[in-house]
Amino acid sequence: MQRLIEKANTLVEALPYIKNFSGKTFVIKYGGAAQIDESLKNAFAQDIVLLNFIGIHPVVVHGGGPRISAMMKKLGKEPRFINGQRVTDQETMEIVEMVLGGLINKEIVSLINSHGGRAIGLTGKDGPLIKAVKKGTRGQGKPARGQKARETDLGLVGDVTEVDRDILLSLQREDLITVISPIGAGPGGEALNINADSAASAVASALKAEKLILLTDVPGIMEDGKTVSTLNGKRAGELMKKGVVSGGMIPKTQACLEALRAGVRKTHILDGRVPHCLLLEIFTNEGVGTEIIP
Amino acid sequence: MQRLIEKANTLVEALPYIKNFSGKTFVIKYGGAAQIDESLKNAFAQDIVLLNFIGIHPVVVHGGGPRISAMMKKLGKEPRFINGQRVTDQETMEIVEMVLGGLINKEIVSLINSHGGRAIGLTGKDGPLIKAVKKGTRGQGKPARGQKARETDLGLVGDVTEVDRDILLSLQREDLITVISPIGAGPGGEALNINADSAASAVASALKAEKLILLTDVPGIMEDGKTVSTLNGKRAGELMKKGVVSGGMIPKTQACLEALRAGVRKTHILDGRVPHCLLLEIFTNEGVGTEIIP
Amino acid sequence: MQRLIEKANTLVEALPYIKNFSGKTFVIKYGGAAQIDESLKNAFAQDIVLLNFIGIHPVVVHGGGPRISAMMKKLGKEPRFINGQRVTDQETMEIVEMVLGGLINKEIVSLINSHGGRAIGLTGKDGPLIKAVKKGTRGQGKPARGQKARETDLGLVGDVTEVDRDILLSLQREDLITVISPIGAGPGGEALNINADSAASAVASALKAEKLILLTDVPGIMEDGKTVSTLNGKRAGELMKKGVVSGGMIPKTQACLEALRAGVRKTHILDGRVPHCLLLEIFTNEGVGTEIIP
Amino acid sequence: MQRLIEKANTLVEALPYIKNFSGKTFVIKYGGAAQIDESLKNAFAQDIVLLNFIGIHPVVVHGGGPRISAMMKKLGKEPRFINGQRVTDQETMEIVEMVLGGLINKEIVSLINSHGGRAIGLTGKDGPLIKAVKKGTRGQGKPARGQKARETDLGLVGDVTEVDRDILLSLQREDLITVISPIGAGPGGEALNINADSAASAVASALKAEKLILLTDVPGIMEDGKTVSTLNGKRAGELMKKGVVSGGMIPKTQACLEALRAGVRKTHILDGRVPHCLLLEIFTNEGVGTEIIP
Amino acid sequence: MQRLIEKANTLVEALPYIKNFSGKTFVIKYGGAAQIDESLKNAFAQDIVLLNFIGIHPVVVHGGGPRISAMMKKLGKEPRFINGQRVTDQETMEIVEMVLGGLINKEIVSLINSHGGRAIGLTGKDGPLIKAVKKGTRGQGKPARGQKARETDLGLVGDVTEVDRDILLSLQREDLITVISPIGAGPGGEALNINADSAASAVASALKAEKLILLTDVPGIMEDGKTVSTLNGKRAGELMKKGVVSGGMIPKTQACLEALRAGVRKTHILDGRVPHCLLLEIFTNEGVGTEIIP
Amino acid sequence: MQRLIEKANTLVEALPYIKNFSGKTFVIKYGGAAQIDESLKNAFAQDIVLLNFIGIHPVVVHGGGPRISAMMKKLGKEPRFINGQRVTDQETMEIVEMVLGGLINKEIVSLINSHGGRAIGLTGKDGPLIKAVKKGTRGQGKPARGQKARETDLGLVGDVTEVDRDILLSLQREDLITVISPIGAGPGGEALNINADSAASAVASALKAEKLILLTDVPGIMEDGKTVSTLNGKRAGELMKKGVVSGGMIPKTQACLEALRAGVRKTHILDGRVPHCLLLEIFTNEGVGTEIIP
Repeated sequence: MQRLIEKANTLVEALPYIKNFSGKTFVIKYGGAAQIDESLKNAFAQDIVLLNFIGIHPVVVHGGGPRISAMMKKLGKEPRFINGQRVTDQETMEIVEMVLGGLINKEIVSLINSHGGRAIGLTGKDGPLIKAVKKGTRGQGKPARGQKARETDLGLVGDVTEVDRDILLSLQREDLITVISPIGAGPGGEALNINADSAASAVASALKAEKLILLTDVPGIMEDGKTVSTLNGKRAGELMKKGVVSGGMIPKTQACLEALRAGVRKTHILDGRVPHCLLLEIFTNEGVGTEIIP
Repeated sequence: MQRLIEKANTLVEALPYIKNFSGKTFVIKYGGAAQIDESLKNAFAQDIVLLNFIGIHPVVVHGGGPRISAMMKKLGKEPRFINGQRVTDQETMEIVEMVLGGLINKEIVSLINSHGGRAIGLTGKDGPLIKAVKKGTRGQGKPARGQKARETDLGLVGDVTEVDRDILLSLQREDLITVISPIGAGPGGEALNINADSAASAVASALKAEKLILLTDVPGIMEDGKTVSTLNGKRAGELMKKGVVSGGMIPKTQACLEALRAGVRKTHILDGRVPHCLLLEIFTNEGVGTEIIP
Repeated sequence: MQRLIEKANTLVEALPYIKNFSGKTFVIKYGGAAQIDESLKNAFAQDIVLLNFIGIHPVVVHGGGPRISAMMKKLGKEPRFINGQRVTDQETMEIVEMVLGGLINKEIVSLINSHGGRAIGLTGKDGPLIKAVKKGTRGQGKPARGQKARETDLGLVGDVTEVDRDILLSLQREDLITVISPIGAGPGGEALNINADSAASAVASALKAEKLILLTDVPGIMEDGKTVSTLNGKRAGELMKKGVVSGGMIPKTQACLEALRAGVRKTHILDGRVPHCLLLEIFTNEGVGTEIIP
Repeated sequence: MQRLIEKANTLVEALPYIKNFSGKTFVIKYGGAAQIDESLKNAFAQDIVLLNFIGIHPVVVHGGGPRISAMMKKLGKEPRFINGQRVTDQETMEIVEMVLGGLINKEIVSLINSHGGRAIGLTGKDGPLIKAVKKGTRGQGKPARGQKARETDLGLVGDVTEVDRDILLSLQREDLITVISPIGAGPGGEALNINADSAASAVASALKAEKLILLTDVPGIMEDGKTVSTLNGKRAGELMKKGVVSGGMIPKTQACLEALRAGVRKTHILDGRVPHCLLLEIFTNEGVGTEIIP
Repeated sequence: MQRLIEKANTLVEALPYIKNFSGKTFVIKYGGAAQIDESLKNAFAQDIVLLNFIGIHPVVVHGGGPRISAMMKKLGKEPRFINGQRVTDQETMEIVEMVLGGLINKEIVSLINSHGGRAIGLTGKDGPLIKAVKKGTRGQGKPARGQKARETDLGLVGDVTEVDRDILLSLQREDLITVISPIGAGPGGEALNINADSAASAVASALKAEKLILLTDVPGIMEDGKTVSTLNGKRAGELMKKGVVSGGMIPKTQACLEALRAGVRKTHILDGRVPHCLLLEIFTNEGVGTEIIP
Repeated sequence: MQRLIEKANTLVEALPYIKNFSGKTFVIKYGGAAQIDESLKNAFAQDIVLLNFIGIHPVVVHGGGPRISAMMKKLGKEPRFINGQRVTDQETMEIVEMVLGGLINKEIVSLINSHGGRAIGLTGKDGPLIKAVKKGTRGQGKPARGQKARETDLGLVGDVTEVDRDILLSLQREDLITVISPIGAGPGGEALNINADSAASAVASALKAEKLILLTDVPGIMEDGKTVSTLNGKRAGELMKKGVVSGGMIPKTQACLEALRAGVRKTHILDGRVPHCLLLEIFTNEGVGTEIIP
């Protein structure tokens, strides 16, 4: 009987969310352990299909750094990074396009389809969905010299300037789940390498999504050894200043803050190692990570 | 973590039902303990509102025997029953209309509305929604003498001949929850007293509902001291013949079988004493009663 | 030939009204002789069905005082009135609900249906359609002492605070004729007894009806022994001040004036003793009562 | 009061017709006295506008023989007839087109418009609306010699082979009243002179009209000095054989019978000298002529 | 191969126009050689049908002066002109209506239909489509004496005051090609003779057409012996002042300028002697006349 | 003037095609010289955009053999072919996916987008759009031994079993141009290498396309030194038997015949070296290759 009561309570808890999120868009950055562990991969794909099933529009943006590096080595190129960003020459960019757009994107699409979904995969060149400029050139008359020098070193790495929301809405209308490789189309149509968290944030912003969810391999933002379950943008800024938010969590937190500024309702940094963390975060009052709200 | 896993499992279990039942009609006979106990009343109303919230069309048919008898006594009339059916003279019928249509129906409507629903209450005269004839006269040239004598004694007790599904569909289109008093409109427009289980069955049949659910005060159909969780129509017939199904469970089982014959997908005799028995039966694999399938 | 010419003239007179009123809403307070005399009852129901037939949306609000008093006496309670308003304790309110919602409402519904209409009956609790507060408490921080004392005496008598027009429009869209019992839902869902003319006026106001029509047992507003066929709001106010409008005609006139202030186009106090007075008033230039215009 | 009762009765009589004829098409052959007398002309135009006003689609087909003859004489040509049909050479046909299409059609259009309608006038060449062949050549391999000789004498006189209902439905959808001159488009696009009763019958047939109405200058079909108010096709045939129907009434009766065979619901030969004969015939149980039914 | 390249270039040139003009309205004044020469007549009709075929809405306004004069003479009346405008007494007006509305309009309609179009012909009386007042009385309290005297001499010659665009849009919605005779309906419904260029300009203005195209028998506006291929309104005014634009080209230029002021996008004075001049002007960059733009 | 006449004739020729092909689907196999020569590439992209512009739905299926071989060599693998088909082991398949789906597909998409289109690129795994089985296993209980041995050698080479037309129709509804890489999804979701002509044929068949167009580097099917401009399926079969159709033209001819059998209206083998060959074939009567009709 206790089990029945708990099940009933879970349902009573979940049903209003189900109703309220119907027709809403959730943009999910997919990466880390959830992209590697077989069991987590399947739970993720099942969650995406179930979300779609009950009327939510999930949009997946994926990464794939390690496999790019592996293919580079196979082709005799040594991967090189500056401040965690891949130095991307023309040849490397082709490898990025082949690995992200040709392999990983299609694997995720197939995984979702094998659980009963109907997914299609795009890169930012399709449409074009994601317009970008070379990093450091966005909105600048003329960059400071030192900065320019530094950034030029990265090569074909880009910042998003525009996301074509109409294409994504078109695919939603047709009830297709979109999986996006973080490759941008430059002013001359050339490919640019985009950070996946930034791409997800830009996509969520363009769609004024209900949620931006970033899957990570940590329990969320930690303070004093405990996960902070919810905080607002102001407090997130303070934690960054105080160094409580640090390292790889900084760009993720910034991606969330940019999305909030653009009108996304809520952002989440989730522990992707918890199976079905998407369902738990979305439909229950349980915390499986940190929620950053306006 | 175990709690999270169980919650996630409940959701994984429930979401496909939620999708599949969206837009479907469930006809629920409401009565017994669930109509008396304050806590069960509220859980019932909450369930109805949540069902409606996620796109299911619940239709409630209620009973109310004890309060009819109480009002009869207040007006100086002694309630009389033959084979469990109320003998209904003209004066009694007016009391039935007043108590069911004027009081109980509106109380249920108010209860649902107080939980956030938008319910309206009808009797079979509205529309007219339920056409009926005096019991024993349906489809008969001339009744056998003994039978006629017996049935005439019941007075204004009726059998349903037709349910106007268009009205119910109209109210569903307008997203209103319908609560029905089991009163029929006779050929001359006169009121007839209808058994609530039969009325619910006839309504479910007319709507070719996804489910007919009868709330009772027992754990379902029992065999050898255990609840039978599922059985088909043939087996249900055998259990009636063998006397395993007996007493008050016989008309309920018959109501289910008639509904199945008319195209209702599944029928359920639930233990209305379990809080949220509707949600549990509909969205989980748990059994809180007996399911009779075609 | 003279007869032909008169018929043709009646048609030439009526057809433009028919066109212009198509799709419009008429709220009709039904009561008095027209609710008792068999022949007038049938003419009324025929009119309602014909109006609906040609695309007008009639909404009926009914009274029923005498039968409430009769049932009270049957149950051993003595009816009591203050300034023409029924003192309504809890027990009386239940009787009001039973008689209005359980009996009279359904009789009118059946009468209309027997003439080929498709009517359903509601009380203010359904939806809830009519929200109300106890008389004297509407919009007041703290009532004056004398007033409070006086009005508390009336018990569960209410003033309308809100009519849910969406429900009525829903039923119109589904081409159902609505018949309303003047019972309001109080803040806690409790029933409140509402004056039928006020209820009709509030319903017409919420719907911004084309017409509010009050059936009476008199020839309209009389002045110098003659019926005033048309007057505007200002003149109506003057006639009340001068005492030309007096007695039972005062609340009816006030109901009309409130409706006009809320945007109802025209209001009519008709002589319900004239058969088919509705058709005559609506489709001809004949006067069968008094019309009050903005 | 008697007058009120009669008005009310006229309305009770008319309203169901109004509902039932809503959206239906009536084809009216307009000619004779009703086309000449100023007062009848205005009553006719008013009727057409009122019919249109309440949702009926009137289509008018007109004649105009006398004015064609007058213009011929003005141009120095002598009108000649064989069996009541105008002998039509090329020059005569041009005069027919000018007088019917250029003058009379536009006068009727203007008359209807001046009463508040929105009429446009067409000839059979527009669209082309009416396709025709020279009289005597319809559906014949080779005409019998004598016949051919006889009919060739008529010149450019045609039989309708096809009416383009789509154009008429288009104009109805746009709520325009169509006024048609009985001129057909021959196989090579040349104009052909068509009998107006036949043209009206063909138009009604193509539209499967609710009614074909022929205005005449007589009280209808007479037998034993009295107007026959209603008769079916079989009886009409008998009356023609017996010579009771004779003279100019024969082609009108045949036009009615052909329309009935093509699926027109009812046909009427009305006395166009009775003002508002259209309204009287359509909305009352009065007879102002003869009705021929299937 | 050269031929293939030229064809391909023609298509590459034309396709964007085809797309951009889809759904747009072109008003074409039809007259002169193109209305007389058999081969030009057929090319014109073919162009109209092709335009309509690919989603453009052509509206044709025609003239017909010479044939009016011929018929006048046949009826013994001598045509008389003042400043190029026909003096129009009542009898003359009837002849105008007969010849334009009864003959020429229907010939053009038949010509278009014979090429596969679906055209219908109207005069300004239909609807009424074109409302007009006697020349010189538009918008004037009291005309100057000299002017009045002069203009009264013209008789029933009118200026357009209003074009009923709804009728034209109705016919477009139904995919009918409209052919208009330049006859206006005066305040009392009487016919008025309108200049065809003015009528076309007024129709184009009312429809806020994409183009107004006037077919002429000259190569366009000439300056220094060469056709001016494009000029704006200001320059056109200057050329009139300088006398470069003179004679019959003045009213045509004024018709264009009025249309531009009313919101027509472009106007064209074409050489109607070039076969398919419509297609060439619309779908290629070739000039076959003069284009006047805002 | 001669040039004007030729332009006009090209338009008169093209416009009916434009109308008739509006809303129709054309499937185009893109490969060979047209995929390499800069000028031809741009003419091709312009044609695709123009087709889409005027309401035609082009679907592009591309090849890419040479670049796959080049990448294989870069990764140290030697390309191997049996009967012109690439032997495809697991590693090779990954390279196929990377080069076709990651590089070539996106280049074509970018090319079309740079001319003003809105294209997106898919492989058969997206959706999945193209379901396939390993070559030789389609529809067979058990393959003959010799055959099996032979075909197993090809490895991951597939035959199409199903194309998901709904996805393509979805993208058409959203006015997106689809570019497809010929990669199929096997029963377990694994990628299979598909011949591009076969893939185009299967896509055209699923869509019941108006046209299947295969671009080649030859002038079409040749007989006696001349291009056969049109032939039907029967004749095509004969020419294959007689050896007139031979070599690489055989699978192309078979792809056409299969499409015709599946309901495609017309198929074309075009000379892709002629600039704008698509426009010329579609909108003119010129032959730039061979047309095979049912």
